[in-house]
Amino acid sequence: MGLPDKCEISIKSKFPRGEKNLITDVPGVKVGQVTLQDQEKNIHTGVTAVLPHERNLFQEKVVGGVAVINGFGKSAGLVQVEELGTIESPIVMTNTFSIGTALNATIKHMLAANEDIGVSTGTVNCIVTECNDGDINDIRGMHVEEKHVFEALENASDSFEEGAVGAGTGMCCMGLKGGIGSASRILECNGKKYTIGAILMSNFGMAGNLRIDGKRIDTTEPAPEAVEKGSVIIVIGTDIPFSARQLKRIARRAVIGLGRTGSFLGNGSGDIAIAFSTGNIIPHYSKENILPVKMFHDSALDKVFEATAEVVEEAVISSLYHAETVTGIRNKTVYALQRYI
Amino acid sequence: MGLPDKCEISIKSKFPRGEKNLITDVPGVKVGQVTLQDQEKNIHTGVTAVLPHERNLFQEKVVGGVAVINGFGKSAGLVQVEELGTIESPIVMTNTFSIGTALNATIKHMLAANEDIGVSTGTVNCIVTECNDGDINDIRGMHVEEKHVFEALENASDSFEEGAVGAGTGMCCMGLKGGIGSASRILECNGKKYTIGAILMSNFGMAGNLRIDGKRIDTTEPAPEAVEKGSVIIVIGTDIPFSARQLKRIARRAVIGLGRTGSFLGNGSGDIAIAFSTGNIIPHYSKENILPVKMFHDSALDKVFEATAEVVEEAVISSLYHAETVTGIRNKTVYALQRYI
Amino acid sequence: MGLPDKCEISIKSKFPRGEKNLITDVPGVKVGQVTLQDQEKNIHTGVTAVLPHERNLFQEKVVGGVAVINGFGKSAGLVQVEELGTIESPIVMTNTFSIGTALNATIKHMLAANEDIGVSTGTVNCIVTECNDGDINDIRGMHVEEKHVFEALENASDSFEEGAVGAGTGMCCMGLKGGIGSASRILECNGKKYTIGAILMSNFGMAGNLRIDGKRIDTTEPAPEAVEKGSVIIVIGTDIPFSARQLKRIARRAVIGLGRTGSFLGNGSGDIAIAFSTGNIIPHYSKENILPVKMFHDSALDKVFEATAEVVEEAVISSLYHAETVTGIRNKTVYALQRYI
Amino acid sequence: MGLPDKCEISIKSKFPRGEKNLITDVPGVKVGQVTLQDQEKNIHTGVTAVLPHERNLFQEKVVGGVAVINGFGKSAGLVQVEELGTIESPIVMTNTFSIGTALNATIKHMLAANEDIGVSTGTVNCIVTECNDGDINDIRGMHVEEKHVFEALENASDSFEEGAVGAGTGMCCMGLKGGIGSASRILECNGKKYTIGAILMSNFGMAGNLRIDGKRIDTTEPAPEAVEKGSVIIVIGTDIPFSARQLKRIARRAVIGLGRTGSFLGNGSGDIAIAFSTGNIIPHYSKENILPVKMFHDSALDKVFEATAEVVEEAVISSLYHAETVTGIRNKTVYALQRYI
Repeated sequence: MGLPDKCEISIKSKFPRGEKNLITDVPGVKVGQVTLQDQEKNIHTGVTAVLPHERNLFQEKVVGGVAVINGFGKSAGLVQVEELGTIESPIVMTNTFSIGTALNATIKHMLAANEDIGVSTGTVNCIVTECNDGDINDIRGMHVEEKHVFEALENASDSFEEGAVGAGTGMCCMGLKGGIGSASRILECNGKKYTIGAILMSNFGMAGNLRIDGKRIDTTEPAPEAVEKGSVIIVIGTDIPFSARQLKRIARRAVIGLGRTGSFLGNGSGDIAIAFSTGNIIPHYSKENILPVKMFHDSALDKVFEATAEVVEEAVISSLYHAETVTGIRNKTVYALQRYI
Repeated sequence: MGLPDKCEISIKSKFPRGEKNLITDVPGVKVGQVTLQDQEKNIHTGVTAVLPHERNLFQEKVVGGVAVINGFGKSAGLVQVEELGTIESPIVMTNTFSIGTALNATIKHMLAANEDIGVSTGTVNCIVTECNDGDINDIRGMHVEEKHVFEALENASDSFEEGAVGAGTGMCCMGLKGGIGSASRILECNGKKYTIGAILMSNFGMAGNLRIDGKRIDTTEPAPEAVEKGSVIIVIGTDIPFSARQLKRIARRAVIGLGRTGSFLGNGSGDIAIAFSTGNIIPHYSKENILPVKMFHDSALDKVFEATAEVVEEAVISSLYHAETVTGIRNKTVYALQRYI
Repeated sequence: MGLPDKCEISIKSKFPRGEKNLITDVPGVKVGQVTLQDQEKNIHTGVTAVLPHERNLFQEKVVGGVAVINGFGKSAGLVQVEELGTIESPIVMTNTFSIGTALNATIKHMLAANEDIGVSTGTVNCIVTECNDGDINDIRGMHVEEKHVFEALENASDSFEEGAVGAGTGMCCMGLKGGIGSASRILECNGKKYTIGAILMSNFGMAGNLRIDGKRIDTTEPAPEAVEKGSVIIVIGTDIPFSARQLKRIARRAVIGLGRTGSFLGNGSGDIAIAFSTGNIIPHYSKENILPVKMFHDSALDKVFEATAEVVEEAVISSLYHAETVTGIRNKTVYALQRYI
Repeated sequence: MGLPDKCEISIKSKFPRGEKNLITDVPGVKVGQVTLQDQEKNIHTGVTAVLPHERNLFQEKVVGGVAVINGFGKSAGLVQVEELGTIESPIVMTNTFSIGTALNATIKHMLAANEDIGVSTGTVNCIVTECNDGDINDIRGMHVEEKHVFEALENASDSFEEGAVGAGTGMCCMGLKGGIGSASRILECNGKKYTIGAILMSNFGMAGNLRIDGKRIDTTEPAPEAVEKGSVIIVIGTDIPFSARQLKRIARRAVIGLGRTGSFLGNGSGDIAIAFSTGNIIPHYSKENILPVKMFHDSALDKVFEATAEVVEEAVISSLYHAETVTGIRNKTVYALQRYI
């Protein structure tokens, strides 16, 4: 349930945390996960699905923006978000070689809910993101099946686990066991309270580079210094009404949170941030060519940017805090942060 | 075999055509296709695969660049090309809802050929592109199977059909039957001959807008004026040594060829151009940090840009020229260009 | 006053033209120009200024988007439009080496009207664009002075000349005398009429490549075939309410109009399109963090895209139609299109 | 001379520092500055010029890449670097309203050295960057003159001052006195030593957010908490041979260094990074269409990325370390970092 407010590694926070300190503090946002673990078969992988709201996402799109922080990644569905500024499907996370299966399942999920897709209207853009969990998971085995994706989509709720669960099951970060992390903050705009939250799957960084709230943590024993590789997928959600251009600006601030934890955006790291807002809903069909929407004034963005950096930083640390030591394929042991604090 | 040099709709050409007037005139380039047709089941779809060379693409990457002309599209694998400037897999075309299956198959194809992927080195970036053939194909049926993709990859050769074949089987363009089209040109640089070619799947444009070599062709009878929808995927290949930045510039010129045929880059059209060069091969592994490569001087690019516009324009017309009238799902008949010339 | 509706080279038009067939048909838009001609001193240059509205642009910003079609250009002020999606100054056109002087003058113009800039609020982003008129103008002489820019800003009105005037005085296009051109169209959205217009300075293209309404025009005699060089600056204005993302999409359609006239986006051509909408005004100061704005539904954009291609194509032809034969520096004669029609 | 190796605020460094710990440790790089100070007239501004090498930059271009970290800025000349991947002029820094004057001077400087520009070849792209020093400088007075720019270009050498000098004279950073800072690192590739360095003008960040080597420094007394505003211009130079694509990747890592010092990339901050390499020289004229160049293998980039983050972080701290307390326009006093350490 987020990084505990008072724990040995808590991050100083400028903004009040949300109730659960999870992205699901944003009203309507749901997260579903399926964890696949089989020690004998070296399976350590899974699926995490983020639902921006509970209604029909194709009919009622949320506004969205993407920042490709480092494009060594295979995520699908980003191009259309950039062009149209909307998100019309759940955002699914899984391992790199399960993108195809997760796409198939997500498309089927959307087709089942929308009889007009591919018949009387166009197609649907499904967002599936990935990190490489091949360090401890038998990724070549492609063990994620469509049923696992359906299950993650169906079990989505406003409460979820962090650490080595869902798509984060096999992820490693800074030479430690990584996984799913989340955090949220409350912001006030003209006397009204809004929430901004992040969920991420941490799989980036070089062993020995970890910093928590600015302080270097030595984690290189007993594991030797690893090369930077991996990736991180960051999803940022909020109920503040933003335009696609503004959400792209917000997504681009995720890098500050990453940097604070010790990342230098390694060559082989696919670092992608996706931001969405439920504050403006864009209907798929509209008789009117011109619709009223709300616009946030850019001059008030600084608090949003600073809170974004905070939730991303804290979500990374939370992903490490909740993960446990695991021994995976090729007998490789990856230690939990807990060992060092 | 390309648009015939002397046919009723030939395009004036500044540059000599390649021998076959196909992208496979570029030495080493191969194209494989599988056509899925079942009139009763309303299946009109398929797979087209472009292989930049015949050797191990993961080990010997080609340089690549991408232009997202209009991003209403779901193609996978473009982000990494933009970041790293290399292409390390075949480029597969299929219908929009078969992206997942084609990804799965292409990943398996690459894993089979490379035991190090996902074990001792990172993952592989597979490029799968799409257009929506739902106007005449039962696209919701998701009829493409992994075996079809394997087949297209395996039967790749330097000769291939155009028109309503492969991934182009169910495509429509300018209210007419579209599909696969290709063309090539010979360019001379400092006395040496090089080839540039394009292959595309045409599925864009509004009925009534077609222009051939500048001349408007009225194709609105008997079919009523359709709305712009669809897409076009364009792959440009050459043996001139270019950098990724230059290939992106070349890919961005595809739009000139599209515009000449009557496109205005409709809102719902996913228009993507991918350009690669076999003139510089980038090894996956390199002991040396610094390697010698060849660089084309930008000041000589004009002829390349103009030839790019020509091969794209001609490939669109060729895709229409070779396609035949078909009646598809919901009893919709789409007429061939041949009816109007 | 735009390209005459019925002239020997009129372009077929899907949409009705505005009353003047100029960008100033968009309510509030004004254009001011200063022409500098001195045959003995080889001065053939000037300034053209586009005012999106007549009020204080810094206080009441218009929404804006930019497309860098080919970035071989030196225009200033584009980066901030991309980030913030607003335009807060006039858009000034001049020759390449007069950018600095035009910037100085435009900044002074804005400072004079806004005492808060640089004191109690931040700075101002001025947009100054350029093409190279060095083929016939003594561009190294840097003959544009600040007073000329002030004059263009002050004489702005809703009526203006085309051809070899203002910033277009020394421009060449397709081997012919180019210059300033404009056009407009009327669009209907839910029963209400809106206007979209373009103004451009044409300085691009290779002699012999000109096409008018699809038809090639041979203009290579007596002038020899020239190399592609130059540029084109396109400003698109409308009163339809668009977001910055949508205006960028619209700006990217300018390329279709260019392509139809024969451009292939030459290496050395700085091709820039800037689009603005007066349909949403963004205040510089706002007590409210969240404001109401109007949003156009992307699904209705096709008519806007097609009209954009039309006004750009027609504005290019109009710039040629209104220009006259001139002999410039190094005794070079550049012929008017009128010689060939 | 860079941040001293052993001072009270030294940054832990993974890589050995260059001899001077300045960007001029990169062979051939020169920096020239002019400081304009007049306490009575409230003039606190200047010019800093970075010369990638000492020869004719137009004839022998360096490879370059740009990252627009946050585009609330008015820098000129970036668009062409993005398109062509080369830098052909000095990189000049000054205040926001002196861009025009600095452009005029830089253009004249280039014209004087190259008689072909604007006559027998095209134009020249001059890079002029800016931050807003209006907090303490009378920026509306536009006190930089062309002669100051010429002087900075002429006095360029491999040794230069840091802190409140040159373009950094009036800059503020994190509520403290900012200015010019620099740092360098030595990298080894296949047994050969190369240098990477940064120079920046620091004018960003919110008072109270400063972190040095991860540790928060409280600097809010006696100055009240300021709003984030300002900007930062970062120039990164190296003699490692990179492509334009790679230099853009390197420029994008500057953000990690900024983040470590406490930046969250504020809305009003124009944060621009420009990277160049002298390892490949691109001739303006080339008889050969195809030239040999050197290419760095992307898989070895991690050390370059990490060193980039280090030199940017250290250059920010160095700019603060060398600056002195000043009282400027409207009687505002901005304190030096030295007061707090």
